[in-house]
Amino acid sequence: VLVPVERATVSVYDRGFLYGDAVFETIRTYEGEPFRLEEHIDRLGWSAERVGMKLTLSSADQVAEVRSALKKVEAERGEPGDLVARIMITRGEGPFGLDPAGATTPCRVLFIHPYRPLPDKDRTDGVSAITYATYRPSDAARGAKVGNYLESIVALREARARGAHEAIILGVDGQVLEGTTSNVFAVRGGRLLTPPTSLPILPGITRGLVLDAASDAGLVAEERPLAPADLHDADELFVTSTIRELLSITRIDDRPVGAGVPGPKTRALYEAFRRNAGLPPP
Amino acid sequence: VLVPVERATVSVYDRGFLYGDAVFETIRTYEGEPFRLEEHIDRLGWSAERVGMKLTLSSADQVAEVRSALKKVEAERGEPGDLVARIMITRGEGPFGLDPAGATTPCRVLFIHPYRPLPDKDRTDGVSAITYATYRPSDAARGAKVGNYLESIVALREARARGAHEAIILGVDGQVLEGTTSNVFAVRGGRLLTPPTSLPILPGITRGLVLDAASDAGLVAEERPLAPADLHDADELFVTSTIRELLSITRIDDRPVGAGVPGPKTRALYEAFRRNAGLPPP
Repeated sequence: VLVPVERATVSVYDRGFLYGDAVFETIRTYEGEPFRLEEHIDRLGWSAERVGMKLTLSSADQVAEVRSALKKVEAERGEPGDLVARIMITRGEGPFGLDPAGATTPCRVLFIHPYRPLPDKDRTDGVSAITYATYRPSDAARGAKVGNYLESIVALREARARGAHEAIILGVDGQVLEGTTSNVFAVRGGRLLTPPTSLPILPGITRGLVLDAASDAGLVAEERPLAPADLHDADELFVTSTIRELLSITRIDDRPVGAGVPGPKTRALYEAFRRNAGLPPP
Repeated sequence: VLVPVERATVSVYDRGFLYGDAVFETIRTYEGEPFRLEEHIDRLGWSAERVGMKLTLSSADQVAEVRSALKKVEAERGEPGDLVARIMITRGEGPFGLDPAGATTPCRVLFIHPYRPLPDKDRTDGVSAITYATYRPSDAARGAKVGNYLESIVALREARARGAHEAIILGVDGQVLEGTTSNVFAVRGGRLLTPPTSLPILPGITRGLVLDAASDAGLVAEERPLAPADLHDADELFVTSTIRELLSITRIDDRPVGAGVPGPKTRALYEAFRRNAGLPPP
């Protein structure tokens, strides 16, 4: 059931609230159609399996539920525009303590929001990023999309304090991992570089589609470990996410990337990504 | 205000629920008196500062609030026995997305529960543990007590699946860090060993008190990096936490620790810890 925001509450004993014991997905629509919904639901199931959480709905039922909620919101809404859905599943309530054995009824929350496009300026000029060194959570959650974002929040706060849009997280040995809510790509001399999913990063759905589009942009895709220098020396740099699609990073750690403006290869990839997905040009 | 459990809810937009954007402390009472309450509240303030969260109550007001809530529950309760308080502070509600800038009103939740003593058998026989290798969150939260426990939950599930009580987390290079909700100590040849707080571990309050008690037990305390072999070869092994105080680990990774029974030095430390804290003998 859809409830108004003021009645959308959970118990303070919900393990999502107590411990961050949650998995989730974010999906957007393009002209009413949820983008790669089945892939997102598959990844949700995989995340749940990764952390040992049992789901009570089949993938097909979850897909149907999201579609029906999106339709309902769209029908009740007086204005056009795309929507964003966030499905969040927690292990539910249980006895105090980390042991999830007593928590038997997962809690499922579906958020539906208007899609807020990025400021035009971010698209036309690109945005800046910093690199942010850290231990990176975590092996258990490797590749799973879980509700443990405090590290990313702290990294993003530092980015914002330094006037940057995004922080690129570096792993314990200094290698490039990903943005706080994005994957990161570098273009250099005909190659499209991004860290491999054998590292503790989210296997982004947009990330996969961009790798698929490399040849359309005349690039050779290469998934390999990257050092910060690979970002600093890139011709072009961009991040990917469901919400931002492809977004040019034109400054990194207070230095310009390449010419300091969004690059032609990023543009070509963005166009190919949209074309391959059957979407109108950006 | 104290509310009954069924009305204790938070918005699904609370950042604690959405992102694990929360800090917390757990405090127990001994014969009605909260143990080291001021130290816990100090650490709460430090955790909040570490992650850039503003607290709205002074430390003194928070101490007073916990005391008064404990008194009230004790008065309304028909039975004797100690209590556990959990203070949890989240960054509250804000616009969707990791950036906490728009979240201006923290959410404070105070849980009060009966203290459930450990099974006698765990005290008399000790318990088992496994070592669990992982990347370990996180630099931002280094030493801060934050609501991101999914890694620990997965580690504990593995421990329980292998019949063990606790998992000892190993860092990215294999060094010993801490338990899922505890610090870890080894006794070996007159020395009391525990990982230093320069590693990404919680600076446990019980941990500090046990280090203080080392000389009372005829031991030399040494905070230094430990390898799993230091645990396997220990004469005695134990974990510390507010709830468990000192608890002997008598099996680690399916091997007995020392003689396989709780050791005399652990017992002496436990007695000294209670004595120094002005508590009756265990």
